[in-house]
Amino acid sequence: MTYQEAVSGQTILTGDRPTGALHLGHLVGSLRSRVKLQETHKQYILVADVQALTDNATDPQKISRNVREVVIDYLAVGIDPSKSTVVLQSAVPELAELTQYFLNLVSVTRLSRNPTVKMEIQQKGFNRSLPAGFLTYPVSQAADILAFKATHVPVGNDQLPMIEQTNEIARRFNQIYDVPLFTEVEAIVPRVGRLPGIDGQSKMSKSLNNSLHLSASANDIRAAVYAMYTDPQHIRVSDPGQIEGNVVFTYLDAFHPDDTLVEDLKVRYQRGGLGDMEVKRILEEVLQETLAPIRARRAEIASQPDSVMDILRRGTAVARKLTASTLDDVKAAMGLIDLKNGTKQWSKR
Amino acid sequence: MTYQEAVSGQTILTGDRPTGALHLGHLVGSLRSRVKLQETHKQYILVADVQALTDNATDPQKISRNVREVVIDYLAVGIDPSKSTVVLQSAVPELAELTQYFLNLVSVTRLSRNPTVKMEIQQKGFNRSLPAGFLTYPVSQAADILAFKATHVPVGNDQLPMIEQTNEIARRFNQIYDVPLFTEVEAIVPRVGRLPGIDGQSKMSKSLNNSLHLSASANDIRAAVYAMYTDPQHIRVSDPGQIEGNVVFTYLDAFHPDDTLVEDLKVRYQRGGLGDMEVKRILEEVLQETLAPIRARRAEIASQPDSVMDILRRGTAVARKLTASTLDDVKAAMGLIDLKNGTKQWSKR
Repeated sequence: MTYQEAVSGQTILTGDRPTGALHLGHLVGSLRSRVKLQETHKQYILVADVQALTDNATDPQKISRNVREVVIDYLAVGIDPSKSTVVLQSAVPELAELTQYFLNLVSVTRLSRNPTVKMEIQQKGFNRSLPAGFLTYPVSQAADILAFKATHVPVGNDQLPMIEQTNEIARRFNQIYDVPLFTEVEAIVPRVGRLPGIDGQSKMSKSLNNSLHLSASANDIRAAVYAMYTDPQHIRVSDPGQIEGNVVFTYLDAFHPDDTLVEDLKVRYQRGGLGDMEVKRILEEVLQETLAPIRARRAEIASQPDSVMDILRRGTAVARKLTASTLDDVKAAMGLIDLKNGTKQWSKR
Repeated sequence: MTYQEAVSGQTILTGDRPTGALHLGHLVGSLRSRVKLQETHKQYILVADVQALTDNATDPQKISRNVREVVIDYLAVGIDPSKSTVVLQSAVPELAELTQYFLNLVSVTRLSRNPTVKMEIQQKGFNRSLPAGFLTYPVSQAADILAFKATHVPVGNDQLPMIEQTNEIARRFNQIYDVPLFTEVEAIVPRVGRLPGIDGQSKMSKSLNNSLHLSASANDIRAAVYAMYTDPQHIRVSDPGQIEGNVVFTYLDAFHPDDTLVEDLKVRYQRGGLGDMEVKRILEEVLQETLAPIRARRAEIASQPDSVMDILRRGTAVARKLTASTLDDVKAAMGLIDLKNGTKQWSKR
């Protein structure tokens, strides 16, 4: 069986919360893989503005602004709208409707025990002021996944509880309404670890101010590389240096096309005799080469804001056919009254 | 100023959870008043199937069945679809979308403190298994009220916290997004107390088996009246009897058109010399007269199921124009991207 045969029929749902422009961490962690997956899979990419609002309700303008930026980022890195369907979450009412029905199938206790949500509540400093929309967002995420009939969802390890919650809802729905409507979804956990921030912090994030955006200028890139965390014990060129935790080498692993050259650099660095400046020069060159075409495409795309909105509009229209059909199936399975078509019985396949 | 002038511009949102056919308690508590209000007010009547599902998720067929019954009850008692707009909640996706945005404006703590919800949680025996949809239904109810731009909502005293929650959301939305979009809603608390069950229990309810449906047959009515709770100390006709807590007299007050006659009966009953059977005969006659035309209209309407669905369909279509316009305003106020019309700024009036 070829790979193409093995994955035929697989549907991927992926996406981003548009809280900021995308950065190198996204390129390594998800964007590159989406560009590959769109060649073999049906792929929906959700710009999750509604989910972003669950903890940004007081600053919705930020979210809307970044919807455009994120779509431009997608197109600039090679997401092809004829192969991937890019969808605006807030323009798909069926997701809100499915959420509304799924909320009845999940207990408050179950939601408050979701490890991802617990961790995020702590990180964001919510306490008694926890917005109800934030507590319930795993249900909304399950609605996204099930609405698109996704079979595979790429997630980091920390997001696995979200997939569990989705599958619980899928099973519970099928069981209560006695229909084989939803199939369980599989997580795709990327082999590549998360790209650290330029300061060596485990996570590249806008709030930590340690990220390098896909739109970074040549000067931004240079400044970032030269500010990059290396081995603080590696003071003289002749000293042996450490590779572990050395961000420059982590980035070389992630971005340099020539593995042999990178291995050679590592040996020389560890032995002593290779200076940080020399390694950084090589990394800067690679990053400039990686980001220059993305930056150029970004500028070109950004100059046609209407076509960006058009791509989002067309993708969303395609998506709505699917989500409306899922919602129809859900309402039929529950025996709800359908004013449009008359109440149907869900045909048990 | 005439009454008509005073109420011009007032919009009423009212409705029922379709968990069972309507009964005499509804007739006295809300239906009669709706029939009057439709002459002077814009009135939307919501058949709240989505809300009914928040604690009936495992039995949705019951809800769908009762949607039809409830609409037939409305028409039978004199709700006129050319004057009142009858709307099916699950067919108005904008309500789910508004709920989704409002959930971000209410804290989990605030929801768990809602006195009505707390009481209902206790009554229904939810505990750790409290469905998330049930905890959050006051937000969905606020979305209903605000979506319809209702100015007045008829509610029992026990539902006043729901109006408070709605007004909190209205204020918070206007404040956060700096728009005067929502105006606060006023509760209309009926002067007539709640009609007791035929057994003298404070509440007429299907689960207590102490109700008399609007569709009751002549025999049902007779049986109910003769089983009705009176004064247990009133054994012989010549004994003085009590009026307080005597369901037969409460019903005479609610249904007999001739107040003077009822006052006269009360005097004779309290003095002694008026037997329960005689009073019950009078009440039965009144109830038979009250329910016979309703029963006849019910049967006529029920024989045209398509026209019932058509009324619901047309009312829902009218409603959706309004709710879609509110949703557009909400999204514009938040500055969300509008793929249909391009992003608008909410015009501050």
